[in-house]
Amino acid sequence: MISVKELAKEAKKASKELSLVTTEQKNTALKAMAKKIRDMEVEILRENEKDLVAGKEKGYDQALLDRLALTSERIEGMAKGLEDLTNLTDPVGNVVSNWTLDNGLDVEKVTVPLGVIGMIYEARPNVTVDATGIALKSGNAIVLKGGSSAIHSNRAIVAVLHEALEETDIPKDAVQFINTTDRSATQELFTMNDYVDVLIPRGGGKLIQTVVQNATVPVLETGVGNCHIYVDEFADVTKALSIVKNAKTDRPAVCNAAETLIVHEKWLEQHKEDLQTMLDQNDIELYGDQKAMKVLTDVLPAGEEDWSNEYLRKAIAVKVVSSLDEAVDHIEKYGTKHSEAIVTEDGSSAERFMALVDAAALYHNASTRFTDGSALGFGAEIGISTQKLHARGPMGLPEMTTIKFKMRGNGQVR
Amino acid sequence: MISVKELAKEAKKASKELSLVTTEQKNTALKAMAKKIRDMEVEILRENEKDLVAGKEKGYDQALLDRLALTSERIEGMAKGLEDLTNLTDPVGNVVSNWTLDNGLDVEKVTVPLGVIGMIYEARPNVTVDATGIALKSGNAIVLKGGSSAIHSNRAIVAVLHEALEETDIPKDAVQFINTTDRSATQELFTMNDYVDVLIPRGGGKLIQTVVQNATVPVLETGVGNCHIYVDEFADVTKALSIVKNAKTDRPAVCNAAETLIVHEKWLEQHKEDLQTMLDQNDIELYGDQKAMKVLTDVLPAGEEDWSNEYLRKAIAVKVVSSLDEAVDHIEKYGTKHSEAIVTEDGSSAERFMALVDAAALYHNASTRFTDGSALGFGAEIGISTQKLHARGPMGLPEMTTIKFKMRGNGQVR
Repeated sequence: MISVKELAKEAKKASKELSLVTTEQKNTALKAMAKKIRDMEVEILRENEKDLVAGKEKGYDQALLDRLALTSERIEGMAKGLEDLTNLTDPVGNVVSNWTLDNGLDVEKVTVPLGVIGMIYEARPNVTVDATGIALKSGNAIVLKGGSSAIHSNRAIVAVLHEALEETDIPKDAVQFINTTDRSATQELFTMNDYVDVLIPRGGGKLIQTVVQNATVPVLETGVGNCHIYVDEFADVTKALSIVKNAKTDRPAVCNAAETLIVHEKWLEQHKEDLQTMLDQNDIELYGDQKAMKVLTDVLPAGEEDWSNEYLRKAIAVKVVSSLDEAVDHIEKYGTKHSEAIVTEDGSSAERFMALVDAAALYHNASTRFTDGSALGFGAEIGISTQKLHARGPMGLPEMTTIKFKMRGNGQVR
Repeated sequence: MISVKELAKEAKKASKELSLVTTEQKNTALKAMAKKIRDMEVEILRENEKDLVAGKEKGYDQALLDRLALTSERIEGMAKGLEDLTNLTDPVGNVVSNWTLDNGLDVEKVTVPLGVIGMIYEARPNVTVDATGIALKSGNAIVLKGGSSAIHSNRAIVAVLHEALEETDIPKDAVQFINTTDRSATQELFTMNDYVDVLIPRGGGKLIQTVVQNATVPVLETGVGNCHIYVDEFADVTKALSIVKNAKTDRPAVCNAAETLIVHEKWLEQHKEDLQTMLDQNDIELYGDQKAMKVLTDVLPAGEEDWSNEYLRKAIAVKVVSSLDEAVDHIEKYGTKHSEAIVTEDGSSAERFMALVDAAALYHNASTRFTDGSALGFGAEIGISTQKLHARGPMGLPEMTTIKFKMRGNGQVR
């Protein structure tokens, strides 16, 4: 039986050492990990194969098996990701502000690592490497709890990372792996407030809600994106069709894909043929409200679950409105505060939409697909925060830090 | 029976309106509230008297009655606090960063209000005004749940604030008051995730822990300060004595007061008479470990509760160590991540201490008493965060905001 508490305690201890290491020491470790991953490709693939065989026996669907599968290319991607991190600015030790009080006390507000990150995720084994790299570059220790479907892959990857770290100044205890498929181990992590500073759940909505509902450790909520495109009365038809098509079909299974099309009744009346053609040509299943069913063809009735949930496939719910505010209200009711777009040639409507809608990312005349660390040029991303505290939107290295006030005096008292 | 859900819903609705108001409209409202508070002083004092009479009947101690009591001076302080807020920079609409992607998409990261703040507090009626002022200036709606001991005072104050808001552009629904002494109302607030964006508990450790343990709404944890002064081997005696005296005796009941003195054995051996004299002259009760009891006089044995809890009076626990790292370990074990100080003439020891100790504020040769919004020049403070996510240390207006990414394009897709 694994003691999650002992692992977390070791991570906390290692995090103290990490608070003293230099950027160079961290980069050396990242490079060593990248090299070792490349060197051990065959071993990692062999262990991944065990997960895939087990997964097929359990009857996993193809999408899940795809997420689980490693290839030479994906392993190279993991190694490259670690190397890329060495080129990013160290987020630690950044003086956010500093000033001197009248009494001469120097005040410095400086970024420091969060401490210990608890990472709870599902099938993708690359998260093991990506999250570890981001944690270490930002000076944090990490406790990894991957999905049971990837246990062999993750075990092999962590062994490789540990081996690499042994030749560096970064303590291998900074990377802890909960080597079990037992779910109670995850739950132990939820309340490990003494040793874990933040939990980051990454995966489906159910996983994330379980963590949010049960954790006393602070959580950085990521990822569920029930995103809307609102095509306003004054939307340009070319832009509207191209944005809806892209947001729905480019990668339907990702969180920044669109799930609902809200369309102004006047625009719809005028452009219904063009819209229908685009939807049909792209094999998009249609669900909709009464008005949508009346104007468009092949529309199935949309119920609460259509408005509330992500399809994550080429299907979209169509809601017809008679005003921008009605669109805003619909998003307020069903949105997940991820990414929301308006298509309009009316600038003031666009600004009103972006002011009123409560989400991490608001788009005027662009696809929601840009809510993504790499698309925005962050260089690394550990998830997309859909909460408001601490970090919102794509989270990169700076979001894995907190601050300290360092006060330097010569005897000041109040 | 009050429906907390209905109040929270109203607050959420009002918060939408607040996202469109100007700085001037907010300042006008703050001034109107200040004026009305001054105008209604007699009425507020009369209601406060009811709380004081009830408190005396219930046998409240003098400290609690003091916190509960309003005076002309305190009412003027509340009004002045609102006026002061009008001079502070509006934290909303601040462009944190902006850039343009290669495809021409403009990305703007801009500060926006959190939305609805749930404020849970105890006896001090001035928190009703202070928190409301900070919430409104930062564009947030607020749901107030004050202590039952102050119910008459808070009810009167909120009535005055509502009356003032009626003459302004700020909707009075932006200020909601849970007008009951029923504790289950507070608990309803804990899980009001759809309508409340953040809970800020302010008061004793027990209140704060209840909120942290039971809330699913994100919490900004404030205030418990089990602060340490570490007097290093190479501490200047004058600085050391003056800092310990100030941190312990200036205002022993506040969170940034010192509760434990950690002292290096060599320094103690050399300066025991001076230390003893200072402690005696200031009537400081002493608790300590075996070594402290041997070197100093009138020291009672310190147990776990002495190391773990705040005295909040003129008492201090003395721990003797033989190294800086032993001091760091003690703070790691018992500290509350609030404010921690080292007194030393050795700069590298000071930097090591400030790097290793995990707290919001670290002091080299200064009193812990400076961890305070007004001392640091923040202008307004809603509490001192002892957590790491979102805000750490004194929280002012900027900490009551989050960000939005606003993306402006002309049809960009991926």
